Amino acid sequence: MDSIFSDRITDVPRSFIREILKVTLDPSVISFAGGLPNRNFFPVDELKEATANVFESNCRDTFQYGKSEGYQELREFISRRYREKQNLDIPVDDILITNGSQQGLDLLGKTLLNEGDEVIIEEPGYLGAIQALSIYRPTFLPVGVYDDGMDLQKLAQVVESNKPKLMYTVPNYQNPSGISYTEENRRGVADILAGSKTVLLEDDPYGELRFTGERKISFKKLLPDNTILLGSFSKIVVPGFRLGWVVAPSPIMKKLIIAKQATDLHTTHFTQSILYQYLTNNDLDKHVNTIIEAYGNQCRAMLKSIEQFFPKTVHCTRPEGGMFLWAQLPENVSSLELFEMAVKDKVVFVPGRPFYVNNAATNTLRLNFSCADEEMIKIGIERLATAINELI
Amino acid sequence: MDSIFSDRITDVPRSFIREILKVTLDPSVISFAGGLPNRNFFPVDELKEATANVFESNCRDTFQYGKSEGYQELREFISRRYREKQNLDIPVDDILITNGSQQGLDLLGKTLLNEGDEVIIEEPGYLGAIQALSIYRPTFLPVGVYDDGMDLQKLAQVVESNKPKLMYTVPNYQNPSGISYTEENRRGVADILAGSKTVLLEDDPYGELRFTGERKISFKKLLPDNTILLGSFSKIVVPGFRLGWVVAPSPIMKKLIIAKQATDLHTTHFTQSILYQYLTNNDLDKHVNTIIEAYGNQCRAMLKSIEQFFPKTVHCTRPEGGMFLWAQLPENVSSLELFEMAVKDKVVFVPGRPFYVNNAATNTLRLNFSCADEEMIKIGIERLATAINELI
Repeated sequence: MDSIFSDRITDVPRSFIREILKVTLDPSVISFAGGLPNRNFFPVDELKEATANVFESNCRDTFQYGKSEGYQELREFISRRYREKQNLDIPVDDILITNGSQQGLDLLGKTLLNEGDEVIIEEPGYLGAIQALSIYRPTFLPVGVYDDGMDLQKLAQVVESNKPKLMYTVPNYQNPSGISYTEENRRGVADILAGSKTVLLEDDPYGELRFTGERKISFKKLLPDNTILLGSFSKIVVPGFRLGWVVAPSPIMKKLIIAKQATDLHTTHFTQSILYQYLTNNDLDKHVNTIIEAYGNQCRAMLKSIEQFFPKTVHCTRPEGGMFLWAQLPENVSSLELFEMAVKDKVVFVPGRPFYVNNAATNTLRLNFSCADEEMIKIGIERLATAINELI
Repeated sequence: MDSIFSDRITDVPRSFIREILKVTLDPSVISFAGGLPNRNFFPVDELKEATANVFESNCRDTFQYGKSEGYQELREFISRRYREKQNLDIPVDDILITNGSQQGLDLLGKTLLNEGDEVIIEEPGYLGAIQALSIYRPTFLPVGVYDDGMDLQKLAQVVESNKPKLMYTVPNYQNPSGISYTEENRRGVADILAGSKTVLLEDDPYGELRFTGERKISFKKLLPDNTILLGSFSKIVVPGFRLGWVVAPSPIMKKLIIAKQATDLHTTHFTQSILYQYLTNNDLDKHVNTIIEAYGNQCRAMLKSIEQFFPKTVHCTRPEGGMFLWAQLPENVSSLELFEMAVKDKVVFVPGRPFYVNNAATNTLRLNFSCADEEMIKIGIERLATAINELI
């Protein structure tokens, strides 16, 4: 039956993470594997009130077919927030509401990528982006990211000797590594891309979740004409609404809207209007601060236990925000083998392998700290340390 | 800037219908142009109650990331309804929830079509399907549909002399023509496709909205292994939730789920759980009957006015259900010219042209009867008749 499938679908890597999530259904397993926001911070009561408001006002409109661009007031809110938080001037017409920023990636692949087009991707890089863009069969050009950001020398070389159409980056508390590009590194990246035809996709789902340090400048400021922004409400309100957005300059936006129409007509205005009611009648900053405080504590607890229990030969990143940190085992130690052992000790994580387009660096792993409390984190890291020590 | 776009996005036809919808914002214009369900029948109070139920139960789950396949209980409901209404045995695992059936078409294109693959499409055919599949750059093979269904001679010839990978059909009250395939015609189509490798996409968004005659056999019964079903809640509950589904055999479903993950992870479980609550606590058949009664009256009112006012040289289809009928003007009369005149008389429709992949047959038009009441229908058809008579 294989012959009936398209070539593109055979290129999409399976989500190892989804396989792992099955293991974590056992409640006695401590999971650092997921990429889920902590459900304790879902503003359920406030969303209930917001929903009641929608039913009391113009709900019949939100139940009808709606504009492909998205719910107007929500797009205006996003534009205002860019202005307030980042001093970015984003016209409402440059904003398209999508089913999470994942769909933004699909629409951008659809609109911009021909088979074989070159795409610079961070290494390690976000698996969801690798999957979404793989559908359009690009050639990935991996460039390493380290504690201070992208490998500028490698980037310059890749831009010089290739013709990358896109570059995908998560500059704030990257998934999977937790690193952030320093201000200097961002300016270095921008200098290399300036004057090139490479379009930069700046994916910023975690940007607001900074628990230490200052916000860094957006690529949209540094390369305003060449940057497409992706944003999401998944990490600051709820992921289940599947609401994100793409910011793109007008010529690209026109094509994105055609792609959106062809793909699913539009994202439901019902959840968009509920979200808008929630954002209007509540203090988002206060809510985000609650999340930041918790995630910051959890991250610090994880780092403290790592220092206490892990052998010194394991290198870990020190995130300034977000939900993940990244550990590098000694070179010949396999995180896949570690995974097998750790499962038996009832603690799981994601081995680094799927975050590399060429499946390299099998001595790395991603640790999520947003979902376990400080007590569980301590127990989990201690169990993991036992497994690491056994393996080394 | 054009060079940055993918080839595929330049192939997607623009939605002429969306352009027309702008004209219809003037409330004094009588519109037969839209493809909207009548908003008076949105079960707002019942959905409000269903939403309250969701907030009272496991809502935190529906706000978290969820299964790509969709909300389990909703998939079970769909499976049960196929059994009850059509005696079709559809395993729950063969059902994927999508953002409307439009997304089903996108995912099927993604999963099954390589560039240049041949796709049989009805002529005239559903514009949304032409748009969704165009993204994957197939070669369309149009086969005419008439009052009793598909042109079997042409179909046999096309299947004989080509290697169509897919065939797309809306056998019940087709969009745009309003025709239904007779039982005999369906068996004829099935005989031609049996033994071929062509996969039939049976899109049935209006199937439940039959106001006259008996339900006809589904292609899924006639060609169980070669048929993929597409369904939707848009026309029987509300379109704004963007909830539809695809039924596909297991090997195809596995790939569809990978495509769904890569495209947007999953459809929001929040609206799925609201819809499930609504379906569980209300009598859907009774609700559907209310819609059928109204649409049937509106369709009959339109046909009556057409008989009274249109010149006898205009041929119209006589729909057994759904939301559209189709008029054919004398051969050298242009429906685009008619449109220009009709707009001035404050009545609009969709000229037939965009429903043909080669933009043929400019003497046809689509008339929607679901949104205007009987009084407005009479006035609108009379105005349109005046314009037709002027033009002829």
